[in-house]
Amino acid sequence: MARLVMKFGGTSVADVERIRNVAAHVKREVDDGNEVAVVVSAMSGFTNQLVSWTKEAAVLHDAREYDTIVSAGEQVTVGLLAIALQEIGVSARSWLGWQVPIRTDATHGAARIADIDATLLNERLSQGQVAVVAGFQGIGPDGRIATLGRGGSDTSAVAVAAALGAERCDIYTDVDGVYTTDPRIVPKARKLDKISYEEMLEMASLGAKVLQTRSVELAMVHGVRLQVRSSFDAYDAPQGSGSGTSYIGPGTLVCGEEEIVEQEVVSGIAYTKDEAKITLIKVADQPGVAARIFGPLADAAINVDMIVQNMSEDGKRTDLTFTVPGNDLDRAVAVIEGARDMIGYEQLLSATDVVKVSVIGIGMRSHAGVAQKMFQTLADKGINIHVISTSEIKVSVLISAEYTELAVRALHSAYDLDDDAVA
Amino acid sequence: MARLVMKFGGTSVADVERIRNVAAHVKREVDDGNEVAVVVSAMSGFTNQLVSWTKEAAVLHDAREYDTIVSAGEQVTVGLLAIALQEIGVSARSWLGWQVPIRTDATHGAARIADIDATLLNERLSQGQVAVVAGFQGIGPDGRIATLGRGGSDTSAVAVAAALGAERCDIYTDVDGVYTTDPRIVPKARKLDKISYEEMLEMASLGAKVLQTRSVELAMVHGVRLQVRSSFDAYDAPQGSGSGTSYIGPGTLVCGEEEIVEQEVVSGIAYTKDEAKITLIKVADQPGVAARIFGPLADAAINVDMIVQNMSEDGKRTDLTFTVPGNDLDRAVAVIEGARDMIGYEQLLSATDVVKVSVIGIGMRSHAGVAQKMFQTLADKGINIHVISTSEIKVSVLISAEYTELAVRALHSAYDLDDDAVA
Repeated sequence: MARLVMKFGGTSVADVERIRNVAAHVKREVDDGNEVAVVVSAMSGFTNQLVSWTKEAAVLHDAREYDTIVSAGEQVTVGLLAIALQEIGVSARSWLGWQVPIRTDATHGAARIADIDATLLNERLSQGQVAVVAGFQGIGPDGRIATLGRGGSDTSAVAVAAALGAERCDIYTDVDGVYTTDPRIVPKARKLDKISYEEMLEMASLGAKVLQTRSVELAMVHGVRLQVRSSFDAYDAPQGSGSGTSYIGPGTLVCGEEEIVEQEVVSGIAYTKDEAKITLIKVADQPGVAARIFGPLADAAINVDMIVQNMSEDGKRTDLTFTVPGNDLDRAVAVIEGARDMIGYEQLLSATDVVKVSVIGIGMRSHAGVAQKMFQTLADKGINIHVISTSEIKVSVLISAEYTELAVRALHSAYDLDDDAVA
Repeated sequence: MARLVMKFGGTSVADVERIRNVAAHVKREVDDGNEVAVVVSAMSGFTNQLVSWTKEAAVLHDAREYDTIVSAGEQVTVGLLAIALQEIGVSARSWLGWQVPIRTDATHGAARIADIDATLLNERLSQGQVAVVAGFQGIGPDGRIATLGRGGSDTSAVAVAAALGAERCDIYTDVDGVYTTDPRIVPKARKLDKISYEEMLEMASLGAKVLQTRSVELAMVHGVRLQVRSSFDAYDAPQGSGSGTSYIGPGTLVCGEEEIVEQEVVSGIAYTKDEAKITLIKVADQPGVAARIFGPLADAAINVDMIVQNMSEDGKRTDLTFTVPGNDLDRAVAVIEGARDMIGYEQLLSATDVVKVSVIGIGMRSHAGVAQKMFQTLADKGINIHVISTSEIKVSVLISAEYTELAVRALHSAYDLDDDAVA
């Protein structure tokens, strides 16, 4: 017997039929003798309806009222799932954020979980009752409902798992696990059985939409083992008393690296398309200039990613390149041009037709030559690298967007990630 | 300056545009210097969507989960109205049942309000902040959301008004007041300026859909003055600083009879169409027989209204007639037939083509001849009376449904209720 948290997102609970399917997944774990807490999102589409009403009422609105409105979405799902579970003979009750309680900070609309009091949940779980917990919401210090911001249900699930001391937190989603790269680009992409928190974090921050970055961070801090699996796998309960576990794909386990026996050097290739590049030509090469450029961008809440500075010929002027999210480009250009006198540069160039490609792997800490193999592979294909940045477990390059597929496929093969079972 | 409670039902908040109209009504009262609490229902249609999902999940469902789901409706409205008020410069915040708190008994799905702690609301109101309170919901002794059942928002409004010691509770609805009778039948029906609680109770229980019976009872007990008015009256805020009150029809005040200076003998004619009549022929005329008939009906939760028993010729057998709601007739007949041996009767006759017409008026306490005028008026039109029942302020007769309009119009004229300004 184990204690599990199961999390289902908006598309998995989009209508009552799918909520019944979720109930069947939960029953399977209960029948296997597990104590189960389920965390659910709002029915997909429902939150959008609520948000659009809010915007219609006023473009700039009180975040506390926004939270009151949109949290109604999860409130409906938990009630429906509890009913669907009871209907198939599973003891269950719904828990709203304020009922648990899940306490948050005061940042309405994008709150962080401060503390979960698991006393009541522990009591019910040990009585064999399934706890159906509303994701995405908690109660703020002001006694009002606070939401965690988009995608916050993953974070709710991990936080509940940590508070309950759960053995595992299963994140059911519309993919069946974490892949070595995007299978739409590389049909030979392999599903990973295990991946470390650190690698998953890089994957998530690079746009792999499987898990929210914040939830992976939280899992890493609290050592919560995350299993990413598909909620759409057909589940045919076996006749008789046997367990149905074998019918469900195991997905991918996100865990500490000590659990991963055979660490691969590179575990995945990621790419992000929504990048934009800004180059400032002939910036004065003197102390303080970087602060004069990136200070105003930070003030405008624009997230700068890669930064590269080249030496100038005469040692007095330098060219400086950095990337920002594509949809922040216009604002970033306006900010820089507004500060032109203060910064002092000759010309500003910008481009949106660029993509960031990264190779990720914990193994590269102990293996030399990983970056060199990346550069060589791209050079062999005639792909020019605009910008390079590295971290302990990642090498990223910025290239022209037209080479995206070519680059990802070439790198996937170069690091021996191809699944040779695929024709 | 006064303290007011304003209540708006589902059709008055059906979309964001109408919620803005409600906000304008509230601003008018605030601009007039009033302290205002607003009680709102769910957007019409929204609750039906939630209820239908609940039924889809399971026909027989946990009432506590049902409450969690459907209470999301008012939760959305209070947030939207608070935002709409802030947008036009009115300080406002939303209050959910559990936040006030509005404490209820444990009867989930049809809870009664046990107690309202008005401490927090009082504090905010005296600071000039409008309190937007979710109708229809409270928190049960189990710490979970409890709903008051259909139409419960009127009751919420009256209970909040009583707890706040409000001078008046304005019930905004889709009619502009209480009429002497149904204007669809009698074009000369007059809108009443005032009506007593007792009369309104009779009107409400007789199917005048303006107010919920329960809310009128509660208002009577706590002496809350209810003003029924239209939320669809065009409200054009006057330019400059003047008040816009004059643009809004005053509606009808439901109050204690001591406030009604010129009491009319009869203030209204009501009718209910969904009646059915059951006659038992030759029932034994002996002690206990009524209990043997009405006991099983009460056990089946069938509401018996009018009861008439005629003397038999020989003093041993009697005929007994009573009415039940039309949609309960089949069940009532089955119950009676099931208990036939116990009751002992010769024949059961039933009919659904009957209607109950009532004349209502506090003044009839002190005026003789009211019933006689009714019988004479109907006799003059050749209308046969099946059953008669009377209370202190009401005379009701059961007649064939085909005479409904004729009877109502004749009685309306006979008691001098016609509005002669109508052509």
